[in-house]
Amino acid sequence: MTTLAGATQDEVRRHNLAGLVRLLHEHGAMSRAELTARTGLNRSTIGGLTTELADAGVVSEGVPAGRRSAGRPSIVVRPRTERVYVLALDVGAEHLTAARVGLGGRVLDRRELRHAREDADVRRTLRRLHRLGRAVLAGSPADAVCVGIGVSVCGVVRGSDGLVRFAPNLGWVDVPLGRLVADGFATALPVSVGNDADLGAVAERIRGAARGADNVVYLSGEVGIGGGVVLDGRLVAGAGGYAGEVGHVRVNPRGRRCRCGAVGCWETEVGEEALLLATGMPPGADLSDVLAAYAEGDRHVRAGVRRVGEWLGLGVANLVNLFNPEVVVLGGLLRQLLPLVEPQIESALGQALVAPREQVRLVPPALGGDSPLLGAAEAAFGSLLDDPLGAAVHRAERLHA
Amino acid sequence: MTTLAGATQDEVRRHNLAGLVRLLHEHGAMSRAELTARTGLNRSTIGGLTTELADAGVVSEGVPAGRRSAGRPSIVVRPRTERVYVLALDVGAEHLTAARVGLGGRVLDRRELRHAREDADVRRTLRRLHRLGRAVLAGSPADAVCVGIGVSVCGVVRGSDGLVRFAPNLGWVDVPLGRLVADGFATALPVSVGNDADLGAVAERIRGAARGADNVVYLSGEVGIGGGVVLDGRLVAGAGGYAGEVGHVRVNPRGRRCRCGAVGCWETEVGEEALLLATGMPPGADLSDVLAAYAEGDRHVRAGVRRVGEWLGLGVANLVNLFNPEVVVLGGLLRQLLPLVEPQIESALGQALVAPREQVRLVPPALGGDSPLLGAAEAAFGSLLDDPLGAAVHRAERLHA
Repeated sequence: MTTLAGATQDEVRRHNLAGLVRLLHEHGAMSRAELTARTGLNRSTIGGLTTELADAGVVSEGVPAGRRSAGRPSIVVRPRTERVYVLALDVGAEHLTAARVGLGGRVLDRRELRHAREDADVRRTLRRLHRLGRAVLAGSPADAVCVGIGVSVCGVVRGSDGLVRFAPNLGWVDVPLGRLVADGFATALPVSVGNDADLGAVAERIRGAARGADNVVYLSGEVGIGGGVVLDGRLVAGAGGYAGEVGHVRVNPRGRRCRCGAVGCWETEVGEEALLLATGMPPGADLSDVLAAYAEGDRHVRAGVRRVGEWLGLGVANLVNLFNPEVVVLGGLLRQLLPLVEPQIESALGQALVAPREQVRLVPPALGGDSPLLGAAEAAFGSLLDDPLGAAVHRAERLHA
Repeated sequence: MTTLAGATQDEVRRHNLAGLVRLLHEHGAMSRAELTARTGLNRSTIGGLTTELADAGVVSEGVPAGRRSAGRPSIVVRPRTERVYVLALDVGAEHLTAARVGLGGRVLDRRELRHAREDADVRRTLRRLHRLGRAVLAGSPADAVCVGIGVSVCGVVRGSDGLVRFAPNLGWVDVPLGRLVADGFATALPVSVGNDADLGAVAERIRGAARGADNVVYLSGEVGIGGGVVLDGRLVAGAGGYAGEVGHVRVNPRGRRCRCGAVGCWETEVGEEALLLATGMPPGADLSDVLAAYAEGDRHVRAGVRRVGEWLGLGVANLVNLFNPEVVVLGGLLRQLLPLVEPQIESALGQALVAPREQVRLVPPALGGDSPLLGAAEAAFGSLLDDPLGAAVHRAERLHA
């Protein structure tokens, strides 16, 4: 419970290196002068640290282009985006995605496949994922190093080892996804596996619609509703890493049975199935059909969307009372639904407690559908960002394409 | 968002002092050898630090009593419980409490008054609270120093300044409780104000039923249901400090109107009023009447308790899905209800997702009704524990009794 760090000089140095790399990763290139101002460290300390990082190939240093003013220019420190990268994978309910993401968060290459639950059996999915991954790795420059692999999955993930406990949209139970990915790429690199909504929250907070906010709820609406929660700047995990199962808050005890077994879970009122039911769509229809019928002014569809909007608002109000976030990001299909149901959500929010309600903004994700993928990249950069010259870089390798 | 500590030697020393005092405060007296083992600092560093703390009057050092084995005994370091204390105040729905609590968490003196909403107007309550506080301060030894004041209140508290935004059980709206308490005691000591359930969670985690757990939900059932949540060892606050309003999660949209204005909030199904309604008690009855009728086997009362138990279970299952805690502490009147409704709660938990359910324990508070009071004491010790030789001790004063 209480830990007491007996910080040594070496630990202080490592801590400072980590802080510098994180700053450059999250905010992009900066002059040494700016780094000095941002960190409170003195100039010579900054110079020593950035030289170390440059020697290790993590950053490059140079004189800024196009300078005109007099005096010695402050050297600009840039993350080596093309050289230091991670492999990010996203296993969604309807797609598989692989990307090479460079230090600084830039997507260097990205491939996607559509898939469906029917062909999501574990071996087949892993084979396709591996093929996608190899395709993006094939394009990496000869001197580039991969420092980690991050995987996002639409399921409940055990924090300790990346076991996917339960992914109803894939039909998976207890799949050791982290190990299977490591085996597939025959690599000893760290593989971190996370829930898609958790990772979406992380990415939107670092680079998206929740930038600068310390308290964020990210909702990933698909077949079900996932939730990722950041509080006080940290992702909420809970004892086993399972926290944030917002789709399974029971809000309608007289409602429908959920895939989880309980009755009246929030996602039975606001997920894609609920939307299709409420709007009376024929079998095989999907969100785009609902949106088309809505645009055509179909009254039955409009009434159904309104009803789903009311349940959506009720659930968002619950989350506002529970987490008091500055921002709620509505991802997945909720992103497309948001403009249609804003009045219902606003009205339901009027039933949240005054104090938390007045602080919250509702927004669509700024990273579109890629928030979980980019969050997986952030997780994969974790060991580099914690200890830039330590284990991560020593273990870095060129993955075989 | 990204902060980079340029840690100096002095900061490292302060950090280590803070860690030592926290260790002694939370775990009690320890030998220097034990402190060395626990902290990973070397013996001479520990000796230097504890000597500094002893000189400042925060700890005492001595040879352990009754030692028999050979060799030089390791000096025992004790928190100076009688000398360094805080004033803790609890403004409940039905009681006012004041206590002197010594370093190490021991209650040195404690006074309580019953009150009711009818006489809870702000000025009157503050006057009575001040009188209670003076009474417990009167007994403090001549050399004792007060290092802070902590106040627990059954309301929604703004984190930044301790403003009570909304305390329905007291009839309070926007009461600057922190400032009023500081004015009442004419002191410049830090006054920290917190929500009763938040502080209950803190106290139960440090010294009570959730000791050792990093993920805890504490429920304070009274007229309404408050919630305090600790995740990853830290109290969940949210953007404004309002997080954890579990009583206002809407679980029954066809239910009753809540004091907050919304329909079907959890507390309309499980608070004291809901219990009295469900059991058909006559006006003026309270929990003890329900318990007595239950004990006598009154069938109508038993059925009502069972129904409340089902709603209680549903809400606890929601919280388990959201927060994935190791422990849920049922405080306030829920403590007395728990043994009666365990089957209903267990059955509802059976509907929570598998993953979080396998880890959670439901327990009554180990600190009885004093969890919020002791949590207020913990908050009041905050500045001392953060910087034992810094601002806190310099500002320490003997409050006039």
